[in-house]
Amino acid sequence: MHAVDDGLLRRREAIGELGDALRLLVENATATEAPTEELLRAAERIRQAAAPLGERVRTRFDSATADDLIAGVRLYNPVTGAGSALAPPVEIHREGTVAIGTCTLGLAFEGPPSYAHGGVSAMLLDQMLGYAVTHSGNPGMTGRLETTYRRPVPLHTPLRLTGEVVGVENRRVTATGTIACADEPGRVLVEATGLFIALRAEQAQRLFGPVLSRRYQEPRAG
Amino acid sequence: MHAVDDGLLRRREAIGELGDALRLLVENATATEAPTEELLRAAERIRQAAAPLGERVRTRFDSATADDLIAGVRLYNPVTGAGSALAPPVEIHREGTVAIGTCTLGLAFEGPPSYAHGGVSAMLLDQMLGYAVTHSGNPGMTGRLETTYRRPVPLHTPLRLTGEVVGVENRRVTATGTIACADEPGRVLVEATGLFIALRAEQAQRLFGPVLSRRYQEPRAG
Repeated sequence: MHAVDDGLLRRREAIGELGDALRLLVENATATEAPTEELLRAAERIRQAAAPLGERVRTRFDSATADDLIAGVRLYNPVTGAGSALAPPVEIHREGTVAIGTCTLGLAFEGPPSYAHGGVSAMLLDQMLGYAVTHSGNPGMTGRLETTYRRPVPLHTPLRLTGEVVGVENRRVTATGTIACADEPGRVLVEATGLFIALRAEQAQRLFGPVLSRRYQEPRAG
Repeated sequence: MHAVDDGLLRRREAIGELGDALRLLVENATATEAPTEELLRAAERIRQAAAPLGERVRTRFDSATADDLIAGVRLYNPVTGAGSALAPPVEIHREGTVAIGTCTLGLAFEGPPSYAHGGVSAMLLDQMLGYAVTHSGNPGMTGRLETTYRRPVPLHTPLRLTGEVVGVENRRVTATGTIACADEPGRVLVEATGLFIALRAEQAQRLFGPVLSRRYQEPRAG
């Protein structure tokens, strides 16, 4: 375990501030009816902002230095990450054994006019179920996800999500979850059932060994 | 049907250019190991780029003026939209009755270290299946989506996606799809089966009437 020093804390805060700015930009760029010339000016400003960030980048086999894979700190998770431009973000807490998520989806998440893309709902629920599975002490990878759409999910409306483990059988964990409007939590809009499968040690080593060994098992000075 | 005039074509091109800039920024901001002070400078530049775009925005009941809902032009679709910061984007074409999609996922789509988030795969497949369903002449909304994960989906690797209608029964259309690496298309990583349900006229009016009437049925001068 790494000590969380001031420099790391400041970096995590900066990543969150950058994430907030990115999410504002993404939503404004999706919703804007600014004149065409203004869109081109924005594109130029954005390329200028992107360039210095691209000078020093990690590969897919390097975890972000601000993350902590062992402690589960993932600042760029595309559903919950404070630093992710793709995440609404969903904020998750636990009430007993149930994971509760909250978010509001902007126009960037639109599928059918004025409603969320069906794939977005599946993505949010995969994350809710995965969170519940991980925090039940039985972490695993998604093996199957069944998403049932009962009613469309409105944009610009506070949502309440749930995720809960309902069964554990050896390496197989089953979880269920729902999406509802926050002001009507009993009226389910979308629900999902997922089967998660714990990795055997050799599977985990094969899949994640390259990342973990670069980050956590290299000889360190000092 | 609106005539596509030069101004609209230029606007659509500008939205695509803005989309390219946004996707570059999102990926660089996810992958960057630039110093913390550089992250804060980028956040400030991004807020400056976002502000003028936010001065004139549509609500969720206004479709984008550059879109054409009737002709299926959706520049901000979060999977395929040229203007979407969230879309990889997936580019889709048809080979016979099969929809074929191509994309490469960056670090912004990461779930397990070095692989795509499971929810991202579900989202891509929902789009592939929906595309096949729409182009079969039986458009509908997702009723159920079953996603099965056989192997993890690597980032930074060209992917090949498929979507195909396999059954039509009255208002219910069934479609299947797959994700594979482009250089090994027969080795399925993720597959999905979806049930799509055509809306009855009164359902379509209830769900989309507010958007469609504002866009297409208002009295127009000239």
